[in-house]
Amino acid sequence: MIDLPKLVQRHLAQFEEYIVEESRRAKVDFISDGFAYQISTGGKRLRPALCLATCEVLGGSPRDALPFALASEILHNFLLVHDDIEDGDTVRRDQATLWVRFGVANALNVSDFMIARAYRLILESPLAVHTNLRLATVFSFALQKTVEGQALDINLRGSTEVDLETYHRIVRLKTAYYLALTWVGGAIVAGAADDSLDPLWELGKRLGPAFQIRDDIIDLTDGKGRGGAIGCDIREGKPSIFYSYILDRKPGTEADRTRLVDIFRRPREATSDEDIDWAIDYFRSHGALQFAEEEARRLAVESQRVLDTLPWSEEGRRGFREIIEFIIDRKF
Amino acid sequence: MIDLPKLVQRHLAQFEEYIVEESRRAKVDFISDGFAYQISTGGKRLRPALCLATCEVLGGSPRDALPFALASEILHNFLLVHDDIEDGDTVRRDQATLWVRFGVANALNVSDFMIARAYRLILESPLAVHTNLRLATVFSFALQKTVEGQALDINLRGSTEVDLETYHRIVRLKTAYYLALTWVGGAIVAGAADDSLDPLWELGKRLGPAFQIRDDIIDLTDGKGRGGAIGCDIREGKPSIFYSYILDRKPGTEADRTRLVDIFRRPREATSDEDIDWAIDYFRSHGALQFAEEEARRLAVESQRVLDTLPWSEEGRRGFREIIEFIIDRKF
Repeated sequence: MIDLPKLVQRHLAQFEEYIVEESRRAKVDFISDGFAYQISTGGKRLRPALCLATCEVLGGSPRDALPFALASEILHNFLLVHDDIEDGDTVRRDQATLWVRFGVANALNVSDFMIARAYRLILESPLAVHTNLRLATVFSFALQKTVEGQALDINLRGSTEVDLETYHRIVRLKTAYYLALTWVGGAIVAGAADDSLDPLWELGKRLGPAFQIRDDIIDLTDGKGRGGAIGCDIREGKPSIFYSYILDRKPGTEADRTRLVDIFRRPREATSDEDIDWAIDYFRSHGALQFAEEEARRLAVESQRVLDTLPWSEEGRRGFREIIEFIIDRKF
Repeated sequence: MIDLPKLVQRHLAQFEEYIVEESRRAKVDFISDGFAYQISTGGKRLRPALCLATCEVLGGSPRDALPFALASEILHNFLLVHDDIEDGDTVRRDQATLWVRFGVANALNVSDFMIARAYRLILESPLAVHTNLRLATVFSFALQKTVEGQALDINLRGSTEVDLETYHRIVRLKTAYYLALTWVGGAIVAGAADDSLDPLWELGKRLGPAFQIRDDIIDLTDGKGRGGAIGCDIREGKPSIFYSYILDRKPGTEADRTRLVDIFRRPREATSDEDIDWAIDYFRSHGALQFAEEEARRLAVESQRVLDTLPWSEEGRRGFREIIEFIIDRKF
């Protein structure tokens, strides 16, 4: 049996060393400080851990996967920087967002630098030419899909068109590829054949949405690390699973639904705490929370099924199953 | 003898066909319209023309260089989108900028989509794996350098530290790699050896700044296509060659220089037409315009010298010299 938490811990220590080395190497006026700030506020390094652990479980050398792991972490932060500007978010993980701290112009420059560095890490790694090309290709593919999801997400806020199918389309685009990218990258570095990558993407299409739904639930129950506030998604009019459940299943009165859409459309500063409480009650009393829990469970079960189709050794499959169980249990 | 204007014309026709095809293939909700708008306002397609012409002159097939040519045009537009947001520019080439037309959030999404598409065009082109990897690597390198230059440019506005050396450092980073990228890419597609690429980058370090200086001059004499207004760089506090000439050579009185710095530091809406006229007079009366002309000429002469070191056939060298003469004569 692999001791996964220990494995992940060891990888993360190695990763943090590598990331410090990288930021030291690339000292650039008016960029490095913002880069370091963004990366330092950067959360739990789940993505690189998944990448490195997958590589190891499949018999590759995690050291070889470090450049890609860092690139995926940089991509994550690149997207967060843009996300925060797009949403006008001033705080993330209880710290000022990059654009608030350094201004929009510098935040954009830092993000452009990030994407260039991420690609260079992949393209200039000492792996085989063919491997680097495959890694850069999946990286670009995942970036494109994520952006397509983001475009739907920000343009469908407060829309009455977001039924459950649309919700799933948005979150699949926004989360699936970008999450699967980490283990697809780890698998490529470990020498996985092209035909073993499809199930990995498919896994992403189950687990990415499962996480997003978990995230939606956390926003309603525990809050997402913004000083304990709950219901931020309601305030921001984000198309959550609860919102699309109501629009799709149409429980309650039409007046209630109209009121809900109205709250989602209102600018965040015009949304009162009373609005939020009302919406949460509305969701709860019509089974939206329970529905969300069931959806998350359904997707987890489906992902186990996809897992069984992986054309890997029994050992590889078992190791990867542990990775998944590890992240499913994890709140983030 | 190559009929270069005709060659460029033919390539551009082929390029426009290709770009239409590409935009048709990638229909994405809330992205494609902005993408098409940005590309349609996209100027003279100088960069793809340089890429394709270089490929042809070096004996390659320009058709093979189309994906890279398009990627370089997309990169150009990606940078323009961010540039316009960073500067708060509302008009470019006499049309509303992307963020004005679609909002900052959508402009950012479109730009993220652009960079993903650009990389995919390069990485997934049907050329040899090794070639695609080389192309993506120089593309990333040029992007990084350009962003480093942009960071200096926006953070040194109204700075008293911008002597001529700093000016050259900024414009070299901002223009050299990004211009040279087009012909480096064309040369790689044509199969040019690695050791023939260095002089091409060196050429960029002469010609990029030469163009920038020409651009600085145009801003003072004819205006840069913003409804005929001249002196926009002064209004925006951009570190032009004139500004750095004054700070470096210190002609006139200290009071004059203080006034100049003050004008450059003032927010654009607080800069009067009288300020602009005064600054232009100040530049002219102290030989800054003449100095700029000489610098542009010096760089052009140097670039001819670099050209002679290219390890190419006499025919290739001659063809490339024509390309350079073509763009040096061109106002853009």
